[in-house]
Amino acid sequence: MGRTGIRTALKVDLNKPAWEQKGLHNRWHPDVPACGKIANNEVVKIECLDWTGGQIQNNDSADDVKDVDLTQIHYLSGPFDIEHAEPGDVLLVEIQDVQPFEDQPWGFTGIFEPQNGGGFLDELYPKAAKAIWDFEGIFCSSRHIPHVRFAGLIHPGILGCAPSPEVLAEWNRREGELIATNTTGRDVAKPPEPKNVHAGSADEDIKAKVGREGARTVPGRPEHGGNCDIKNLSRGSKVYLPVHVSGAKFSVGDLHFSQGDGEISFCGAIEMAGVITLKFTVIKDGMAKMAMKSPIFHPGPVEPQFGPGRYLTFEGFSVDENGKQHYLDATIAYRQTCLRVIEYLRRYGYDDYQIYLLLSCAPVQGHIAGLVDIPNACTTIGVPMDIFDFDIRPEVDVVKMDMGSCAFAGP
Amino acid sequence: MGRTGIRTALKVDLNKPAWEQKGLHNRWHPDVPACGKIANNEVVKIECLDWTGGQIQNNDSADDVKDVDLTQIHYLSGPFDIEHAEPGDVLLVEIQDVQPFEDQPWGFTGIFEPQNGGGFLDELYPKAAKAIWDFEGIFCSSRHIPHVRFAGLIHPGILGCAPSPEVLAEWNRREGELIATNTTGRDVAKPPEPKNVHAGSADEDIKAKVGREGARTVPGRPEHGGNCDIKNLSRGSKVYLPVHVSGAKFSVGDLHFSQGDGEISFCGAIEMAGVITLKFTVIKDGMAKMAMKSPIFHPGPVEPQFGPGRYLTFEGFSVDENGKQHYLDATIAYRQTCLRVIEYLRRYGYDDYQIYLLLSCAPVQGHIAGLVDIPNACTTIGVPMDIFDFDIRPEVDVVKMDMGSCAFAGP
Amino acid sequence: MGRTGIRTALKVDLNKPAWEQKGLHNRWHPDVPACGKIANNEVVKIECLDWTGGQIQNNDSADDVKDVDLTQIHYLSGPFDIEHAEPGDVLLVEIQDVQPFEDQPWGFTGIFEPQNGGGFLDELYPKAAKAIWDFEGIFCSSRHIPHVRFAGLIHPGILGCAPSPEVLAEWNRREGELIATNTTGRDVAKPPEPKNVHAGSADEDIKAKVGREGARTVPGRPEHGGNCDIKNLSRGSKVYLPVHVSGAKFSVGDLHFSQGDGEISFCGAIEMAGVITLKFTVIKDGMAKMAMKSPIFHPGPVEPQFGPGRYLTFEGFSVDENGKQHYLDATIAYRQTCLRVIEYLRRYGYDDYQIYLLLSCAPVQGHIAGLVDIPNACTTIGVPMDIFDFDIRPEVDVVKMDMGSCAFAGP
Amino acid sequence: MGRTGIRTALKVDLNKPAWEQKGLHNRWHPDVPACGKIANNEVVKIECLDWTGGQIQNNDSADDVKDVDLTQIHYLSGPFDIEHAEPGDVLLVEIQDVQPFEDQPWGFTGIFEPQNGGGFLDELYPKAAKAIWDFEGIFCSSRHIPHVRFAGLIHPGILGCAPSPEVLAEWNRREGELIATNTTGRDVAKPPEPKNVHAGSADEDIKAKVGREGARTVPGRPEHGGNCDIKNLSRGSKVYLPVHVSGAKFSVGDLHFSQGDGEISFCGAIEMAGVITLKFTVIKDGMAKMAMKSPIFHPGPVEPQFGPGRYLTFEGFSVDENGKQHYLDATIAYRQTCLRVIEYLRRYGYDDYQIYLLLSCAPVQGHIAGLVDIPNACTTIGVPMDIFDFDIRPEVDVVKMDMGSCAFAGP
Repeated sequence: MGRTGIRTALKVDLNKPAWEQKGLHNRWHPDVPACGKIANNEVVKIECLDWTGGQIQNNDSADDVKDVDLTQIHYLSGPFDIEHAEPGDVLLVEIQDVQPFEDQPWGFTGIFEPQNGGGFLDELYPKAAKAIWDFEGIFCSSRHIPHVRFAGLIHPGILGCAPSPEVLAEWNRREGELIATNTTGRDVAKPPEPKNVHAGSADEDIKAKVGREGARTVPGRPEHGGNCDIKNLSRGSKVYLPVHVSGAKFSVGDLHFSQGDGEISFCGAIEMAGVITLKFTVIKDGMAKMAMKSPIFHPGPVEPQFGPGRYLTFEGFSVDENGKQHYLDATIAYRQTCLRVIEYLRRYGYDDYQIYLLLSCAPVQGHIAGLVDIPNACTTIGVPMDIFDFDIRPEVDVVKMDMGSCAFAGP
Repeated sequence: MGRTGIRTALKVDLNKPAWEQKGLHNRWHPDVPACGKIANNEVVKIECLDWTGGQIQNNDSADDVKDVDLTQIHYLSGPFDIEHAEPGDVLLVEIQDVQPFEDQPWGFTGIFEPQNGGGFLDELYPKAAKAIWDFEGIFCSSRHIPHVRFAGLIHPGILGCAPSPEVLAEWNRREGELIATNTTGRDVAKPPEPKNVHAGSADEDIKAKVGREGARTVPGRPEHGGNCDIKNLSRGSKVYLPVHVSGAKFSVGDLHFSQGDGEISFCGAIEMAGVITLKFTVIKDGMAKMAMKSPIFHPGPVEPQFGPGRYLTFEGFSVDENGKQHYLDATIAYRQTCLRVIEYLRRYGYDDYQIYLLLSCAPVQGHIAGLVDIPNACTTIGVPMDIFDFDIRPEVDVVKMDMGSCAFAGP
Repeated sequence: MGRTGIRTALKVDLNKPAWEQKGLHNRWHPDVPACGKIANNEVVKIECLDWTGGQIQNNDSADDVKDVDLTQIHYLSGPFDIEHAEPGDVLLVEIQDVQPFEDQPWGFTGIFEPQNGGGFLDELYPKAAKAIWDFEGIFCSSRHIPHVRFAGLIHPGILGCAPSPEVLAEWNRREGELIATNTTGRDVAKPPEPKNVHAGSADEDIKAKVGREGARTVPGRPEHGGNCDIKNLSRGSKVYLPVHVSGAKFSVGDLHFSQGDGEISFCGAIEMAGVITLKFTVIKDGMAKMAMKSPIFHPGPVEPQFGPGRYLTFEGFSVDENGKQHYLDATIAYRQTCLRVIEYLRRYGYDDYQIYLLLSCAPVQGHIAGLVDIPNACTTIGVPMDIFDFDIRPEVDVVKMDMGSCAFAGP
Repeated sequence: MGRTGIRTALKVDLNKPAWEQKGLHNRWHPDVPACGKIANNEVVKIECLDWTGGQIQNNDSADDVKDVDLTQIHYLSGPFDIEHAEPGDVLLVEIQDVQPFEDQPWGFTGIFEPQNGGGFLDELYPKAAKAIWDFEGIFCSSRHIPHVRFAGLIHPGILGCAPSPEVLAEWNRREGELIATNTTGRDVAKPPEPKNVHAGSADEDIKAKVGREGARTVPGRPEHGGNCDIKNLSRGSKVYLPVHVSGAKFSVGDLHFSQGDGEISFCGAIEMAGVITLKFTVIKDGMAKMAMKSPIFHPGPVEPQFGPGRYLTFEGFSVDENGKQHYLDATIAYRQTCLRVIEYLRRYGYDDYQIYLLLSCAPVQGHIAGLVDIPNACTTIGVPMDIFDFDIRPEVDVVKMDMGSCAFAGP
């Protein structure tokens, strides 16, 4: 009667290669075989690898970030067949808990080189860099970014149900079109990639098909969510997910101890391996009832609260660093906003890379302030002042400190 | 000893045309003469017109919105000479209070036609529309959007110091370049416009110069702030503004009773006339000390707090409504997010225009969730559920209600 | 159509003695004549004197506090006849706004001598003292308590409907019994007092009756609320009040710019004159429907929010300062909790009286932690650290400062 | 390098009697031998039994509550010797995490009979009763109190350092005096009790001494904290504890999944067994530096946040249910406040005992509103409306539901 613990629906082995574990996969495809069944209304624990499947080490070099293999990332736990779920239903997933593994109380944030992953500010900051974060209960701190400590807003970076063949085809069509018309000189999307595909327990034929057709897990996508990286999706949140295939084929992974709005360094959150506790409830015919085209979220009542007066807010506009005016471009504006924060915080002795890492993973609030006053979009970033152990208010004199260094790659 | 009230530095006359009032102006230009002096550390009240200078009426037709004269908008109160302020200083402005006029306890939100102002969703919703809001202390409600009531996060839409000639020239250069290369078929920026220019107490020569060179007040700009429309800039906030000319020449206007992130309908806030109470403090050499390129804000401790679990959050991606994939475009993503909210709320009986108006002015939280997972930017909108007097949680059955109508323009 | 302002139901004259103004009264009695009518669902403004009816001056002496005439206090505005209200109904009062008078932007906090008013800590701190607070928009600060500034949680100290003759008789019975059995050597309750009674526009006979029978306004009482001094009853709050007489005979007064839980110095809030904006709605037969014996409150969404991690919390137990153990006495415990705060804050250079004043009026959170673990009751006080402009966290070294002095009475 | 997990400083065995486990004890006494050492600045996990040491079962009868053996309660984990801690120091304890045991995801709230424990409302509600709560991640719900679910504010009920012989003697003196002069007919304090004393690994002589002199763990006490039951002492909080003996001899226990202010039913929290993660830092000479007589707390930034407008607030005064007037008695006032909540909530179909249980353990806010307006103390209870899955706002019609029953003892 309530006495027993919660079933663990999937265990992962941190000492075994991800591609040998049948409960993991790294592409979105309807044919990846289910690795288990979950009953309607059931609560289960699911173990997850970190985002890179264990490629990053707890050390003081960013060589591992520089050399990360991006065909191998995002080993998701699943897919799971959810009892009664059929296309057109909505799968209500309640995130009851997220925890790092007890014996691995640390995570990492990385900045990738433009030629291997890149990031939001990679034209200005092209070097690979890394910060290791130690977890202390709900808090984390890093030897690579001193004088900072904050409570994590722990959450899964990726969760969603498998696409139907039709949805998958649409993804490949539109992203293929973007790639085909790309003139930017940089990757604009990741097409299907047979190399290093992992399709769980699929046989060779299915695996080959998943390799040819399967959607990469890098972006979130409107039809199912996926890598949406919403930092407030923490303990106590409910997520309403569209179901596209029979059984839903739900997958989850890419756990974050914390993240800032924008997740700007690409590997921007504090990435970790861990365990997530989820409750599943099927809402029959929910997509029509809720007029749902994309997932809807209902955050929980528990998150770090700093008080409205404990943020320092920076603004940026769609005029780039070369003085070029862009038309209502919120992406450009957000980049400028990031730079304003870097300029402000570097006065205390931080290296720009340290701040770039911090902006990616600390609970900063990135808002769209204005999007209609031509030609300038305006965005803001609210930096919670209480994550620093010194006083960053503008009225307090700046004392430059020895801030050490984050981890860089070797020469 | 503290007994006397606060000096009113500028009174406006609501019954006299704006262009006849010497304390108002509607262009940013260093040569607009100061309309008064304010001492360092002084607290003053400043009266302001509404955004349109009184063009919008409290009635049930949007004809006035349709026919609004956009060369006449943003009559700012000022500029004021601030004692001791010199270029390179920072002007700290504390917003101690904002209030509507006692005898005019109402405001408006408007949707403009694409050919006269437009808005964020004008391709889908091209009709002029309007909602009138009645103020009840800190709350507001509208006969045009029933079953909604919320506390305003009252703030000024526009404040800033005058540009120097150099800053102004740079604005005109880069915005002119954007206009010159425009192939979109729609206005991308507003160039200087002599028609209906109002330069305060300037003589005819200066006025003509301001008309030729003066920057339009529509957009915010990084060098000084201006129309930044940051909804949390409410009572108790501090703003740190760069000073570009001797005396700072500070101006303020465009008061809002409330606004949503993005201010999506252009006239998106609840616009009102009223009084703002400000304290001014000059920080000598502040721009260098604070490494400041754009204004910095420190919000106050008082704002409507709904609790993290009282928002319903929608997400959108940079795939547009025609299925076209865009590359990390947060503006496109935010438009999709708006549409997701409209689809959800229309189930209760609201017309899409009512929701569009509501999204513009209610305290919705617009966040940048992810900007690095190619090709999809992801943004979210958190809708505070407590602004409705019925329960909009997904688990509660939808009952369609008679929601009346917002005001539209005549045929 | 919404265009006109709000009716002022009562104006007060700050330059005329309170007892000459017919819209004021200073006793609770059903026979005090109504000073005006308010319609059901109407919104009105009501002007109020400060708590002492103007006896306290904005100066640096506490002589006026020492000599205050307590038979003259609490001149309430009203009573008002509310349309349709009958005994057994509930009067819903929405507090839409509270403001100080524009030309009187200051208030005061006082400590009274034990022989004239007293206070919670008067055995330890028997001297009359005073702090004057200057209002700056939503903030206040005091020359008598430097290095402190906070946003007010502005509210009315007293509001309620008139007692019926039966309710009034019960008050006089039970309080008379307490007085009759008093052996403490100090006043335990205030009986009816003909001296200086003010019964509004009553004729001499009624006035004499009100003097003989009318309840003093010092305490709140369960049947109607009255002087309940609930600090969170601020802008946007709803109060549900029992109605005991036909027309409700609603009164309000004793406006506070801010108050701490407990209002410990008796004149513990920041007392001020001002204007309150209220909306009245009658709920027929509400007392039975709501099973109501005492008022119920629904606070608004807007109050100063410091974040849970921005309080420093002190605890006290029911062991008094002489080492005597009391049985589950929360009053004793709260007094000890106050002393713990005083001991902590005096290290920064504050005089005990300054802290006593501050604890009375700053937004401190006074909680009942435990009341069942015999023999110790435990209470806590959470002090918001952000009201100080220096850092009071325990881990930061204490620097003693020159804190000046509060106002004291002359020799 | 950060890679390894956190050391568990004490394991408990849930299947072995508490009195056989050497790392537990159930009296406060300086001679209880230390069960382990903890380094300065170390982080450790400590396992704890539930409050009753396992006497309460997960079933539907309250016989176990009725028959609970109160000489056996509060088996605390410890005491631990903290490196470098000496009398006069302050021990800073950071609560980094608290968790129930994975395989025991439930807890209980109990109402005790007056003759065996009692509670705050035991004259009105004398029957033993119980509710079992199932944990779902951060949430809990109970089959015994339907339509309620909330996030726990998980915390330890008891923590503190051992008393010195002098402090202990003072406790026994003053509590003995209270017992000696007791005329109330009920227990007013618990004297030392040799029966069922457990002194950890002490030999028989020491154990006998601890039995004769050791302080019962029921109450918190000002000199060291102990059973202070402060509900906000959750994950992320810091506690500053006075040190009275060499090595501090720190103990902890009585974990709560949640608690309401006042913990009114005595066994008022949701009691559970579990694991607490603590960091210890010694502040040399801290008691003098911090002017500390009682522990000081600094809560963390993470707790359930409902928003100020999501509470419904009830008030009570020091007039008891028989109409007797008491003098500024906050304890009486709080009891009346509890009764007001019970009267309100029973309209929905809840039995009074269910509400009594709920008030004990849900995150209700119990405030001291006023303590100086003779003769009435006024206290308030804020009930968070979001813990109910139906709408309890006063303006919504009441629908009576079948609320089942809590567990009662057999006849």
